[in-house]
Amino acid sequence: MSVQSYIENNKDRFLDELFSLIRIPSISVKQEHKADMEACARRWTEVLLSSGADKAVVMPTTGNPIVYAEKMVSPAAPTVLVYAHYDVMPAEPLDLWKSNPFEPEIHDGRIWARGADDDKGQSMMQVKGFETALQEGLLNCNVKFIFEGEEEIGSPSLEAFCQEHKELLKSDIILVSDTSMVSAEVPSLTTGLRGLAYWELEVTGPNRDLHSGHFGGAVANPINVLCKMIADITGADGRITIPGFYDDVEELSQKERDMIAQVPFDKTKYKQAIGVNALFGEKGYSTLERNSCRPSFDVCGIWGGYIEEGSKTVLPSKAYAKVSCRLVPHQQHEKISKLFEDYINKVAPDYVKVKVMPKHGGEGYVCPIDMPAYRAAEKAVSIAFGKKPLAVRRGGSIPIISTFEQVLGVKTVLMGFGLEQNAIHSPNESCRLDYFFKGIESVAEFYREYTKK
Amino acid sequence: MSVQSYIENNKDRFLDELFSLIRIPSISVKQEHKADMEACARRWTEVLLSSGADKAVVMPTTGNPIVYAEKMVSPAAPTVLVYAHYDVMPAEPLDLWKSNPFEPEIHDGRIWARGADDDKGQSMMQVKGFETALQEGLLNCNVKFIFEGEEEIGSPSLEAFCQEHKELLKSDIILVSDTSMVSAEVPSLTTGLRGLAYWELEVTGPNRDLHSGHFGGAVANPINVLCKMIADITGADGRITIPGFYDDVEELSQKERDMIAQVPFDKTKYKQAIGVNALFGEKGYSTLERNSCRPSFDVCGIWGGYIEEGSKTVLPSKAYAKVSCRLVPHQQHEKISKLFEDYINKVAPDYVKVKVMPKHGGEGYVCPIDMPAYRAAEKAVSIAFGKKPLAVRRGGSIPIISTFEQVLGVKTVLMGFGLEQNAIHSPNESCRLDYFFKGIESVAEFYREYTKK
Repeated sequence: MSVQSYIENNKDRFLDELFSLIRIPSISVKQEHKADMEACARRWTEVLLSSGADKAVVMPTTGNPIVYAEKMVSPAAPTVLVYAHYDVMPAEPLDLWKSNPFEPEIHDGRIWARGADDDKGQSMMQVKGFETALQEGLLNCNVKFIFEGEEEIGSPSLEAFCQEHKELLKSDIILVSDTSMVSAEVPSLTTGLRGLAYWELEVTGPNRDLHSGHFGGAVANPINVLCKMIADITGADGRITIPGFYDDVEELSQKERDMIAQVPFDKTKYKQAIGVNALFGEKGYSTLERNSCRPSFDVCGIWGGYIEEGSKTVLPSKAYAKVSCRLVPHQQHEKISKLFEDYINKVAPDYVKVKVMPKHGGEGYVCPIDMPAYRAAEKAVSIAFGKKPLAVRRGGSIPIISTFEQVLGVKTVLMGFGLEQNAIHSPNESCRLDYFFKGIESVAEFYREYTKK
Repeated sequence: MSVQSYIENNKDRFLDELFSLIRIPSISVKQEHKADMEACARRWTEVLLSSGADKAVVMPTTGNPIVYAEKMVSPAAPTVLVYAHYDVMPAEPLDLWKSNPFEPEIHDGRIWARGADDDKGQSMMQVKGFETALQEGLLNCNVKFIFEGEEEIGSPSLEAFCQEHKELLKSDIILVSDTSMVSAEVPSLTTGLRGLAYWELEVTGPNRDLHSGHFGGAVANPINVLCKMIADITGADGRITIPGFYDDVEELSQKERDMIAQVPFDKTKYKQAIGVNALFGEKGYSTLERNSCRPSFDVCGIWGGYIEEGSKTVLPSKAYAKVSCRLVPHQQHEKISKLFEDYINKVAPDYVKVKVMPKHGGEGYVCPIDMPAYRAAEKAVSIAFGKKPLAVRRGGSIPIISTFEQVLGVKTVLMGFGLEQNAIHSPNESCRLDYFFKGIESVAEFYREYTKK
């Protein structure tokens, strides 16, 4: 039997197994979902065992547990470590969903659900690709799986876990399906990721909400102050104004810029897809450079004062924001975090109190495209998608990838099957059905290619 | 019997009647309280009738109903029109209240509840002062009452009601208890009010929340843009930068500045009371000038993106703010509203869509201190509080006061008994018990003084 027919014959079961995981709302950011995290981890061990793993266990951490599984074919064979995450983003705003985010539906050629792509869908491609390779006699390497439950909150427990279990996680290459392709027409492999730094800001003005008539004009309003501090972080040229912020940013070589310029990109379609009339970003760089190889500053959330129905006049006591920077390789998130904190504390005026609370962060990553594992992935995707994938750097962050390199000394191949229109982190997340099966095929073919003599 | 002993003998009943009104959560800004508005209006008619009105009715408007009542002593006598409002501000944030906002408690010499001061407490002083004057044989003028249920949302129905009922509302002077005194030691009467303009802003970036890794740096973030627009409205000198904004602002005369400088003001205590280390406002003006005679710009509320627990990375689709300006006499709120709207539309960058939604507004007001009614109020407060009240301009807004002047051609005396520490519009609103009864005494004495030959 061929890889393709094995997949074809087991389609419905693959989907059932995926759906059983999607139905568990494993939202790591919310404490109320603690039990769901446990349930999701346990469910993965069942799926991994039935897919062919010799062993699958739930291992505790100080946070959510980690699922570890393995299939050892020979001590002499190379070892692939598959990393994925079983936690998902919150589904809010719920009113924008056209279906229940945790009850998957199939229509219009897609699976619709939170996690359909990120990362339950993609990790299922890894597991079912592994099963297919095993059943088709193509698995000539050892495979280890490590699925964490805290990726969406910055993997706070994973580094310590890696430090403690270096021997267990020993491997030659790490394989991850948690990224996207350039477009449906342009298969690609991700060869670079941005880093991340994240902060929460709290600005306190008066000790209670004041009547804006009695105090307005005489007492600083913390929302006005917060807006001013945020506004000043970006210049009119789209550059971040924090002193020292660009010190470690490696300028793009002309060669790299030429490569990026070759990636098919239709600005009009891009704007239409997201519904904007114009784009804005750092002066002197193209859109594809801006969203992959240049740092950025975004307010992820802001709140303060009266935000309900109607028009309450108030000079509020507090204002808050969640802000983040995407970083590029060589920028260290801890250094940037400190720069930001120092900057905010320096510019904070004396008429308010400002607290900067650094949250999770991580470094960027670059994957060498001459590694055998990268070449195997390239070949595998070519077979499944009928086109050689482009090597592209992307703007997202998987901070743990650089941690793996530092702690385990192992490089990662990012073999992702997402698409921009899958709307990960957004309402109505989905995954193309054909991509789900092509992803499985790619992973099976990867095992064939990786151990080909 | 004297005014004071009548009040002393009826204290408990006065409080019971007040509490029966406070217990009805007549929050005009929330649609869900529609029935409470009706109930509160009906309850007022009962209280007004039992206090001595000949007639009290609930009159419909296109919004919340208006309570009208009257006591006619003689067609030849002058007529006082008492204006008040029976609606209250929302109680949020509820977790900051030390007691149930709609179940009044008495302790530490104060009544604690939403509306204890603004305006249920103060309107009860008017009604019980009227009752006292009537019972003590001091009422030699006609009295009309008009209590509206939409003051906290900008009195949208009251102007039309006045236009329609000019004959019914015919009067010689309007009396209002809805303002504060300078401090417990410094009784005062308010002789000026600021106007108000209020807008809601909606900034739309992409048509859905985007992954900040995939789009950050290449697509404008509507929260960043909103912050920038808000920040730019105020200059480093605390002045509002909107072109033409100060055109109609009357500069303070030296005489007026000298009067303001005589109002007792302890900057250190003021800062301590609201818990700030420093004050901020328009350069070149004192705190008391800034919060009463100069315009201001405040963000009353702001929201957008992910505002729940944890750190979600997102480039949001929308950002919102509720913003307002306090205006000074001669600034027309409709003109300012238009200036603001034009300004925002002009500065809005093409990479977002911006909607400006003007909300309620109103003009400021100045009360001549040589009117007989003002002098009667001055005398009445002197008797009840043992000190001649200062004439001061205040920073709050009661837009309807200037409307009364325009539509009915009648001036208003602002005879308010609030205090800053009453925390109106804030959690733990309260009213000093002694002030409640001194307020009643002042109103009774007003009637004596106003018709003294």
